[in-house]
Amino acid sequence: MAFTLDELVSRFGGVVIGDGACRITGLAPLDQAGPNQLSFLANPKYLSQVETSGAAAVLITSAALDKIASREGRSFLVVANPYAYFARVAQLFLALAQPPEPSGIHPTAVIDPSAVIAASASIGAHVVVEAGAVIGERVRLDAQVFIGRNAKLAPDVHLYPRVTVYHGCTLGERVQIHSGAVIGADGFGFAPDFTGDGGEWVKIPQVGAVRIGPDVDIGANTTIDRGAMADTVIEEGVKIDNQVQIGHNCRIGAYTVIAGCTGIAGSTTLGRHCIIGGAVGIGGHLTLADRITVAGKSSVTKSLTKAGVYSGTFPAIESSDWNRNAALMRNLDKMRARLKQLEAAVNPTR
Amino acid sequence: MAFTLDELVSRFGGVVIGDGACRITGLAPLDQAGPNQLSFLANPKYLSQVETSGAAAVLITSAALDKIASREGRSFLVVANPYAYFARVAQLFLALAQPPEPSGIHPTAVIDPSAVIAASASIGAHVVVEAGAVIGERVRLDAQVFIGRNAKLAPDVHLYPRVTVYHGCTLGERVQIHSGAVIGADGFGFAPDFTGDGGEWVKIPQVGAVRIGPDVDIGANTTIDRGAMADTVIEEGVKIDNQVQIGHNCRIGAYTVIAGCTGIAGSTTLGRHCIIGGAVGIGGHLTLADRITVAGKSSVTKSLTKAGVYSGTFPAIESSDWNRNAALMRNLDKMRARLKQLEAAVNPTR
Amino acid sequence: MAFTLDELVSRFGGVVIGDGACRITGLAPLDQAGPNQLSFLANPKYLSQVETSGAAAVLITSAALDKIASREGRSFLVVANPYAYFARVAQLFLALAQPPEPSGIHPTAVIDPSAVIAASASIGAHVVVEAGAVIGERVRLDAQVFIGRNAKLAPDVHLYPRVTVYHGCTLGERVQIHSGAVIGADGFGFAPDFTGDGGEWVKIPQVGAVRIGPDVDIGANTTIDRGAMADTVIEEGVKIDNQVQIGHNCRIGAYTVIAGCTGIAGSTTLGRHCIIGGAVGIGGHLTLADRITVAGKSSVTKSLTKAGVYSGTFPAIESSDWNRNAALMRNLDKMRARLKQLEAAVNPTR
Repeated sequence: MAFTLDELVSRFGGVVIGDGACRITGLAPLDQAGPNQLSFLANPKYLSQVETSGAAAVLITSAALDKIASREGRSFLVVANPYAYFARVAQLFLALAQPPEPSGIHPTAVIDPSAVIAASASIGAHVVVEAGAVIGERVRLDAQVFIGRNAKLAPDVHLYPRVTVYHGCTLGERVQIHSGAVIGADGFGFAPDFTGDGGEWVKIPQVGAVRIGPDVDIGANTTIDRGAMADTVIEEGVKIDNQVQIGHNCRIGAYTVIAGCTGIAGSTTLGRHCIIGGAVGIGGHLTLADRITVAGKSSVTKSLTKAGVYSGTFPAIESSDWNRNAALMRNLDKMRARLKQLEAAVNPTR
Repeated sequence: MAFTLDELVSRFGGVVIGDGACRITGLAPLDQAGPNQLSFLANPKYLSQVETSGAAAVLITSAALDKIASREGRSFLVVANPYAYFARVAQLFLALAQPPEPSGIHPTAVIDPSAVIAASASIGAHVVVEAGAVIGERVRLDAQVFIGRNAKLAPDVHLYPRVTVYHGCTLGERVQIHSGAVIGADGFGFAPDFTGDGGEWVKIPQVGAVRIGPDVDIGANTTIDRGAMADTVIEEGVKIDNQVQIGHNCRIGAYTVIAGCTGIAGSTTLGRHCIIGGAVGIGGHLTLADRITVAGKSSVTKSLTKAGVYSGTFPAIESSDWNRNAALMRNLDKMRARLKQLEAAVNPTR
Repeated sequence: MAFTLDELVSRFGGVVIGDGACRITGLAPLDQAGPNQLSFLANPKYLSQVETSGAAAVLITSAALDKIASREGRSFLVVANPYAYFARVAQLFLALAQPPEPSGIHPTAVIDPSAVIAASASIGAHVVVEAGAVIGERVRLDAQVFIGRNAKLAPDVHLYPRVTVYHGCTLGERVQIHSGAVIGADGFGFAPDFTGDGGEWVKIPQVGAVRIGPDVDIGANTTIDRGAMADTVIEEGVKIDNQVQIGHNCRIGAYTVIAGCTGIAGSTTLGRHCIIGGAVGIGGHLTLADRITVAGKSSVTKSLTKAGVYSGTFPAIESSDWNRNAALMRNLDKMRARLKQLEAAVNPTR
């Protein structure tokens, strides 16, 4: 399995400086690459590694290439975004290395007769697909996946082993969901009905669903709850890491990224192109504007209307403010000592 | 599927003001409801919406009804708790809309011959029930559920797809558990045995179980560990959200509610009617009194003996104290500037 | 099922003071133990309970035994580490009480013909083992486990029901993993490629795996991601609780313990013998030295190079510093009042 630089250009674009017939058989970081390997320069601080790298060719921007003293000994593939280009070439190599998934339905899968399964779909061992579900072309359901009644999976969806999709949920094209994730469990809604000693929490039926747009990736053991009345919505291109919890009736704007262990309470809307760090907590019924970044472990308890970077735990504020104040907090004992000294100076007899 | 207001009264109580023969075919919020729909007024701030709502009938308290200027154009159902009443009617509609679950055992389920399965139970595809387990009347086990040996499920339990119940655990009547939850995995207990360079953590066998009372709801991917010697206990009517972790030997008091992503370390006891926010951390070997509320993302590192509202991250204190101090923390740089100015005034030559 | 003290000594070491023929049929804490039961004294503060305990025999250090006034009425088993010894005896009793797992492959398991399954392995109902996987001697796969292609499980591994091991991952001898855990899902890596209005996050293929050393325990619903290029590594003897998330390319040093709900971002290295509390967040690309302890709920955002105890949320600092400053933070309003008073004294006319 090998591609010449010219072949890569014809697939993904870019301009070859050097030998377009140079054959690439794999990828590696600059400091580990050998002959026949393609590397990339994404961060200018590694510029000096380019000249010493053993790579046959290097993905590089034209601005960075101008700073290379000697182009001897290797070829260059000049592109706008070396890291993204590298990722696409890596996907190409991986796809060719993996055994092809045969289409068809494993004999141990349990498919309701009213479900519609595209002929090109691949349904693994012990999968369960309930009544009325629709499974699109080239969908791949790995072993032990569960698809509830009337759920709809668009073409090219890939669910890894042991994913649950509850009834009525819809997944857009090319959605990928990792093992253990649960899409469409009931939102957490109960009405208190206590009088005197007795009573109970009365469950509020959750009759919305989850609607996931195209090109969404969801990590292992993440949970996204169905809406109470309307749907919970994940827009196109959103990327969600492992063990994230998204409450009922949330809407996550397109291309937003959410890192692991973050929890978002119900009825909250995140804008487009937000970046939410790991283990962040976002309260319910809030609205975050487009292009908000929240640092890891922060608490968001108010709506954020202005693009920017937010941090902190009581609650998140703009990161520059947080960092200045957090540094003081770690040294509060010194401030108190200064205060004490002042008090002694001002009221010496006290 | 429709009910008259009089039919609802005969099921759930209340008093009709207006047309008892008015037919209800569904439910909706005040601002979205149309003819034949029932709505509710739970929060006085939406009082003005009642008169403009298109709802055929509105659930309302008698106190709120007294404030309505015009009762024209719709009927009222006067009840003590409109929101809880609404939830019960919604449950009724949902139950009728859902396809009935046929009783019986799916041919792909693997049931140990020594397990006892009630005739009215419904056992889904690829379910596994081990030796000595007891499955009560009308229990519903969705696809791919696992029930360990000697576990006991009371009547009307519903486990969604892919729930694990370990050996020896017991579930009370009407318990509902969502997909991916794990009940009864080993608690986290190891004895250090290191000397010099060598050694190991010696596992402490976890020989207790998990005992769950009636009417408990448990969310997706939540984990509740079995006890080390005695049992971990979840009392009646407790409601637990997704991705909650409850350590070995905890006891959660009746009707307590725990929001998503919260973790409770081992051997901690929560009182009755507590409300624990999302992503809260509660340390081990603590006791929380009845009717404690803890704000989201707080850390509880000491026992709390007094009912009240607690917040904060180092560690939680009464919320009013926390909020006052947290506001100062966000402005600590201003306090330092004032301190500096004072120092200059007092010691001008410094 | 019973053992004499002499029999225990021949298995686990120690010295009997009293009756070596004394028969033990079970274990219990000092204050609950009855005749024929073995108890232990691990914490000197319970010394007084030894003399009043109904236990037939007590595990004790020789130093503690010297402080016991009367040895009447019970025997002693003098050992270096009573708690670890107790755990080992408890394991022995538990192993004998459990029904033996029959070796062999359940007829509903789906095993690829190219997988290699040791004759002494026990493969449960609805298990899936893909092509090229290797399952060692006495491995026990409980129901509904998934093993991806070319994964390798060393002898005596035990996977509880519904564990996922992705392709190419390797598990060392005696590894135990609880229900719902996911080993080897893709790490969270995407290259941004946005220009103007359009663009996407380009997935970076995750072609490393997860390599787990011997004697590692992993809790329910924990996730450990596969590496991007190199492997994610969990060294021998590591113990990980429930709902922990470990990002791609992390390395966790031998014998380190990680409590529940903790998240560790990608490419971070933890030393040996670290103790990480519950719900801790550790950032990416950090290095923690050997023998670091981090208190529960802390945030670690910088590398920690010195053994010690760290706490805090902005970010973690040495615990003694944190505790002193956190106490001041909870009383910041008092500091401000003192500052105000001083300002009035220094600038009375202001």
